[in-house]
Amino acid sequence: MKKAIVVGAGLAGSYMAYTLGQKGYAVQVFEKRPDPRKSVYGSGRSINLVVSDRGWTAFKYAGIEAEIRKITVPAYGRQIHDLEGNQSYFPYSIEGKAIHSISRSELNQTLVELAEKNPAISVQFEHFCTHIDFELGEVTFDYKGETVKERADLIIGADGTGSAVRGVMMKQPRFNFTQEYIDSGYKEVHIPAAVDGSPQLNLDALHIWPRREFMLMGLANTDNGFTGTVFAPFTGAYGLDQLKTGKDGLRYFEKYFKNAIPLIPNLEEQWENNPTSALAIIRCKPYHWGSKTALIGDAAHATVPFYGEGMNGSLEDARVFCELLDEWGHENLPTVLERYTEMRVPAGNALVDLSLRNFIEMRDLVADPEFQLRKRIEQKVQKNHPDKWTPLYTLVKFTNIPYHDAMAEGERHDRIMAKVLATENIEERWDSDEVEQLVLDLLETTV
Amino acid sequence: MKKAIVVGAGLAGSYMAYTLGQKGYAVQVFEKRPDPRKSVYGSGRSINLVVSDRGWTAFKYAGIEAEIRKITVPAYGRQIHDLEGNQSYFPYSIEGKAIHSISRSELNQTLVELAEKNPAISVQFEHFCTHIDFELGEVTFDYKGETVKERADLIIGADGTGSAVRGVMMKQPRFNFTQEYIDSGYKEVHIPAAVDGSPQLNLDALHIWPRREFMLMGLANTDNGFTGTVFAPFTGAYGLDQLKTGKDGLRYFEKYFKNAIPLIPNLEEQWENNPTSALAIIRCKPYHWGSKTALIGDAAHATVPFYGEGMNGSLEDARVFCELLDEWGHENLPTVLERYTEMRVPAGNALVDLSLRNFIEMRDLVADPEFQLRKRIEQKVQKNHPDKWTPLYTLVKFTNIPYHDAMAEGERHDRIMAKVLATENIEERWDSDEVEQLVLDLLETTV
Repeated sequence: MKKAIVVGAGLAGSYMAYTLGQKGYAVQVFEKRPDPRKSVYGSGRSINLVVSDRGWTAFKYAGIEAEIRKITVPAYGRQIHDLEGNQSYFPYSIEGKAIHSISRSELNQTLVELAEKNPAISVQFEHFCTHIDFELGEVTFDYKGETVKERADLIIGADGTGSAVRGVMMKQPRFNFTQEYIDSGYKEVHIPAAVDGSPQLNLDALHIWPRREFMLMGLANTDNGFTGTVFAPFTGAYGLDQLKTGKDGLRYFEKYFKNAIPLIPNLEEQWENNPTSALAIIRCKPYHWGSKTALIGDAAHATVPFYGEGMNGSLEDARVFCELLDEWGHENLPTVLERYTEMRVPAGNALVDLSLRNFIEMRDLVADPEFQLRKRIEQKVQKNHPDKWTPLYTLVKFTNIPYHDAMAEGERHDRIMAKVLATENIEERWDSDEVEQLVLDLLETTV
Repeated sequence: MKKAIVVGAGLAGSYMAYTLGQKGYAVQVFEKRPDPRKSVYGSGRSINLVVSDRGWTAFKYAGIEAEIRKITVPAYGRQIHDLEGNQSYFPYSIEGKAIHSISRSELNQTLVELAEKNPAISVQFEHFCTHIDFELGEVTFDYKGETVKERADLIIGADGTGSAVRGVMMKQPRFNFTQEYIDSGYKEVHIPAAVDGSPQLNLDALHIWPRREFMLMGLANTDNGFTGTVFAPFTGAYGLDQLKTGKDGLRYFEKYFKNAIPLIPNLEEQWENNPTSALAIIRCKPYHWGSKTALIGDAAHATVPFYGEGMNGSLEDARVFCELLDEWGHENLPTVLERYTEMRVPAGNALVDLSLRNFIEMRDLVADPEFQLRKRIEQKVQKNHPDKWTPLYTLVKFTNIPYHDAMAEGERHDRIMAKVLATENIEERWDSDEVEQLVLDLLETTV
C-alpha cells in the first residue's frame, strides 16, 4: 500500500487526506494543534468562509458535496451601507447565483471526521514538523518533546501560512519565497443576533461599509449573528495603531459606521479587547521539491481575505493535484509534481493579486459613482450577450477557469471599459444602443 | 558596561564587533562555524572581494585603513576578451581611481584578530542561534548540543544570507521578506600563476569574457593566480544544467572562451568536480526588530556579486549604524534603530537592484558597440564638466552617496543618453560640440 503523509489537518490538509484515502493511499495526517474535539478549534481566527464554485467542484470530486451543503448559508449579493446609513444591494450575478457562508471550524471538523471514517487514514495532533529529508521522503516531528520520524511515498505540506514544510524547502537552493504584509490590518467585532434571536441585518448578503481607505464588513454566522471586521491602515489619522482604546473605537464608529453602533451592544469593550491583526501574503516557487513533496493551500500562497477565495483556491490545489494523480498515476509522481507547479504557481500568484485588488474594489470602488456606472453597462452587455461578457467576479467565483486566465480576462475588461467610460456624455448615453455596440466592437478588437 | 551580542563573525560581524568595542561595549560575538584558525575559513566561497570607497570609509571610521590597505591589490579597469581573443581595456574612472582586491579569508581573519585584541570583545565559535526574545534582548544558542542563553543591550544579526536572526524576525507579524534566485548560476575555475610564478593575465584589471547571455570573469589573487568564474543560465542549450561533464565544459570553453583554455591546465577536471552554485537575493523590511536588535550585511540584503559591492554595502551598514549611535547615544537606541531602517532599507534594495543590472552590463553591454559609444560621449562630458556628470559606476564605487540616490542619478543619465543616442548620425557626430551641448542642455532639463 502506498503511503502518504499530510502535514496539517486544516481545510486543505483534511480534504487532501480524504481524497488520497479514496485513491488507496494509507494516509497519516500530522497536525501541530491539539485535537479540535478536545478544545476550541481555530479560536481567534475568522470563523466565516464562503464556498464558491471552485470549492464545490472539489467537494463534488470527493463525493461529499451534499454533506457540506447542509452546513452552508447562501449569500446572493453585497449590501452597501453609506455614511448616512442608506443601504443599496448589488447581486453577485445577474443569474441569481449565490456564494455560501460556512463556519471554518464546522467545515474543518466535518472534513476530519469524514477522513477518519477511512481506517487507512489516521490523524495525529500536537506533532510539529521539524525536518524533511526530501530524498528519503522522511518527515521528522516533535511530539511533546520526543522525536518521531515517518517515511512516505508522497508528502503534502498543507500546514498553512507559517508552513514548516515550506520552511525546509526555503533552505534549498533555487527556492523562491516572498512574505509581505499589507499596510492594513483588521479587528473583529461581533454583531450578535437580536434579543429575540432574529438577525439584525439581512442574512443573505455580505454587508459592506466602504469608506475608501478602510471598511467595515459583516458576514452572517449560522446563529443569526454576524462577524464584523474593520479593515483599515495601521497608520494615519484613523489608523488602527492610533485607535487603541474603546473610546477611540466608539468615536471612529460614530464618524464612519454610525448605523452599525446599535447592532453592537458592547462595542467599546470589544474594540479595546479584541486584537488588531496583520494581513500577510505568501508567494513561492516551485510548489514542490524533489520527487515526493508538494505544498497546497496557504502554505504555497497565503492571501488576504478580500475575494473570499483563500479556501476555494486551496481546495482547488488539492483537486487539481488529485486529478493529475488520476491522469499520470503514482508511478509518475515526479511528472505530477512538475505539472502541478506549472499549473498552480501562476494560479496562486493570480489568487493573491486578485485578492489584493478586490480590497480596493470593496473599500473604494463600490462607493464610487463611476464604478457603479461601469457595472450597469457591463450588466446590460452581459444580459444581452451572455456568451461574450462574463464579469471577472463571475469568472472567479462561479467557474473553474484558472485564476490567472480569469485575471487576464478581467484586465481586458478594464481596458475596454476605460475606453467606454472615456466617451463623451457617457453618464447620459450609457443605456443607448451605440454604447452597447461600442462595447461589442471593443470586445472583438481588444486583446 | 553596556553589553552587545553580535551573531556572525564574518566580515560585517567582526567589523561591527570591533567598532562597538571602540565605543565601550562589552561585545560577545557568536559564530556558527568553527574557528577559522583551526580550519579552512570560508572554503567553497569566492575568495576574491573588492574594496570600494564605501569599504575604505568604514575602515577609516574604525581607524584601521592602513592595516587593511597592506593586504589589497589595486585594479584600475576592466580587460575585455572578445570571441577571437582580442583584448581591450576600459579604466574604471577617468581620474585613474582603483578598486582593491582582497582575500575574503585574510580580511576576515584580520578583522577577528583586531577585535580580539580588545579584552572586552570575545569571539565564540560553533554557536548556532536558535531563538531570540526581542523584548528581553536574550539570544539562545545551540553549542554542541547544549543550550546557551545570553542577554545584551544591543543585538546585531550579522549572520549572512541564511540569517538565523532574520529567521526569528520572519515569524513576527509585519516583517516583510523576499528570497529570490536568479536564473543564472556560477561555477569557479582556478587560473593558476605560470610555472615561473608570474601572472598569466595582467593583475591590475578585472578580466571579462562577455558573451551576452553569460560570461567568464577573472579576478586576481595575491599569489598571481586568478579566480575564474563562469556566470550562466541554468537552462537552455548552453545552460549550466546541461554542461555536466568535463568534456561538456571543454567544448563550451572551445566555443566561447577559447583564449582562456591555455591558462587553465586542468580545466576538464575542475569543470566536472567544482560545484555549480545558485545566486540568491534577499530583501527584507524593516532592518530592526523591537528596541534592541538590528540586521546588517547579507542578513538584511544578500545580493548577486556583479557590482562587487556586497561587502562594501555591508560595511557601510555597520558604519552608518555606528554613526547613528554616535549621534543619538545608546540611551536613544530605539531612535537609532528606526533611523537605521529608514536609511538602509532603500539603500539595501538599491544595492540589490544595481547588482542585478550590472550583470546585464557586464555580460552584455560591455560587448555592445552602442554601449561603448555612450561611454565615449559620457567620458567626454565628464572630462570637460566634472562638476556636472559623475557616472553611475563612480557614484557607486568612489563615493559614499546612498545607493538609492546613486541609482536615481544613473536612471536620469539613462534617460538623457537615450535621447542623445537617438539623434541622427550620432555615430559620426558623437565628438562634436553640438552633442556635448545637447547633453548639457538635457542635464538641465531632465529630472
